[in-house]
Amino acid sequence: MSVEAEIIAIGNELLLGMVQDTNTHWLCRQITGLGGRVQRCTIVPDELNAIEQELKRALQAGRALIVTTGGLGPTPDDMTLLALARTLGVPLKEGSEALAMIERRYRELVATRRMDEAELTESRRKMARLPRGAIPLANQVGTAPGVLLKHEKTVIISLPGVPPEMRDIWQNALKPHLKALFGKAFYLEKTLLVALNDESRIAPLLKEFQMAWPQVYLKSRPKGFEEGILEITVAMSGERRSVEETFSRLAQALKARLGEEGLRAEWI
Amino acid sequence: MSVEAEIIAIGNELLLGMVQDTNTHWLCRQITGLGGRVQRCTIVPDELNAIEQELKRALQAGRALIVTTGGLGPTPDDMTLLALARTLGVPLKEGSEALAMIERRYRELVATRRMDEAELTESRRKMARLPRGAIPLANQVGTAPGVLLKHEKTVIISLPGVPPEMRDIWQNALKPHLKALFGKAFYLEKTLLVALNDESRIAPLLKEFQMAWPQVYLKSRPKGFEEGILEITVAMSGERRSVEETFSRLAQALKARLGEEGLRAEWI
Repeated sequence: MSVEAEIIAIGNELLLGMVQDTNTHWLCRQITGLGGRVQRCTIVPDELNAIEQELKRALQAGRALIVTTGGLGPTPDDMTLLALARTLGVPLKEGSEALAMIERRYRELVATRRMDEAELTESRRKMARLPRGAIPLANQVGTAPGVLLKHEKTVIISLPGVPPEMRDIWQNALKPHLKALFGKAFYLEKTLLVALNDESRIAPLLKEFQMAWPQVYLKSRPKGFEEGILEITVAMSGERRSVEETFSRLAQALKARLGEEGLRAEWI
Repeated sequence: MSVEAEIIAIGNELLLGMVQDTNTHWLCRQITGLGGRVQRCTIVPDELNAIEQELKRALQAGRALIVTTGGLGPTPDDMTLLALARTLGVPLKEGSEALAMIERRYRELVATRRMDEAELTESRRKMARLPRGAIPLANQVGTAPGVLLKHEKTVIISLPGVPPEMRDIWQNALKPHLKALFGKAFYLEKTLLVALNDESRIAPLLKEFQMAWPQVYLKSRPKGFEEGILEITVAMSGERRSVEETFSRLAQALKARLGEEGLRAEWI
């Protein structure tokens, strides 16, 4: 069974259209590549109730993984961890490990003259206040630590909204945790280019294949009429050998069937 | 009162991370610019139940506007309109106006040699099957019409997922409908650049301003430590004169207060 995941992006700037949310797409790619399956993504405003409601819904849906981005910073509109604590019914408490991480980061930033003051003000200390049971995750780019928390069968990961910080924590501090969560699942994705500008023409054929191969994800996408090219994407995850064997049979069958329809097709 | 909106993007390719969803961001920008307020955005898979559940939730939240993107095409995994019909408890029926639009588009595409056959196959006719009460919206770029439907106090708009088609329908066929929905609301957004690399330092000041001006959206964003620049965005919507007057008072007060703190700031 693949890990079912949900992503929640938090920030008014996303809903106002000031900033394009690229974190969600990046995380979808990562989770899919690890053999997981993202079931749903949401963007919600910097409002305590909205965040809490969304976390509750994702927990109730029984996801194995919930990832949030945004709302971990020092300003009052950063309230992801408070919402998380309220959702789980646990207190928010200053963590000594998180505080040490923040202190170290500000000292580094002052030492390299990227910041003037290393003093731990109230706003900075705020970033060390974590829900009980949370593990802080070192942020090597910014100052706010990420957070990992296990609640029953769900792993909840909260990451900063600034993309380089989000990616740094995912790729470094989270590495061992992700390995434990995803295990050795294997993901395969291949694209077949078909010389055709009319998606409607292969609709019945795709339907037939999707019904015959329910474990495989099949999707056609027109590249625009002008190009006269249609992409068919095939994706599946599971145990490596079985995935590769299934794909090899499907690839042959699909190409043969398109040939019968007089359509040229090439795997890329 | 501003129009509260919700956006639902539909498509497995988005959740698999194959394609970055840019439609949602574009729509957020448009709706905000018209004086509306996007409260929530979601990405869901090409699954009937998932789409239906999301539409139901958005309707129950009492939004004035729900916009969906994706799932209007000729292939079997395009099922937005079926989900919409089920959500509203109305039948899905072939509409003569929608069918005429599709027929005209295929004839144009064949006339300009971008497609070979104009015949209305079963897959193509599928795009004309609309929920009862729906108004089809002409698509000048692709073939699938958009759809507008009123249900109690909510306007539901379904657009194709291919970005140029989505934008074409929004900017052309939807124009009179959007005017009627949004009226003359006015949106103002300004950015203040502050010479500061430490967001935590102005957190208390922003909190003070946000409490004093609850009708205004205030957001600080670091541009990275290296640049030493912080952006403060101020946004609000409402009746034009009142918005401009409020902004002028706030702008002065904010700059003066930052001056007291010894910080240089400039509106751009």
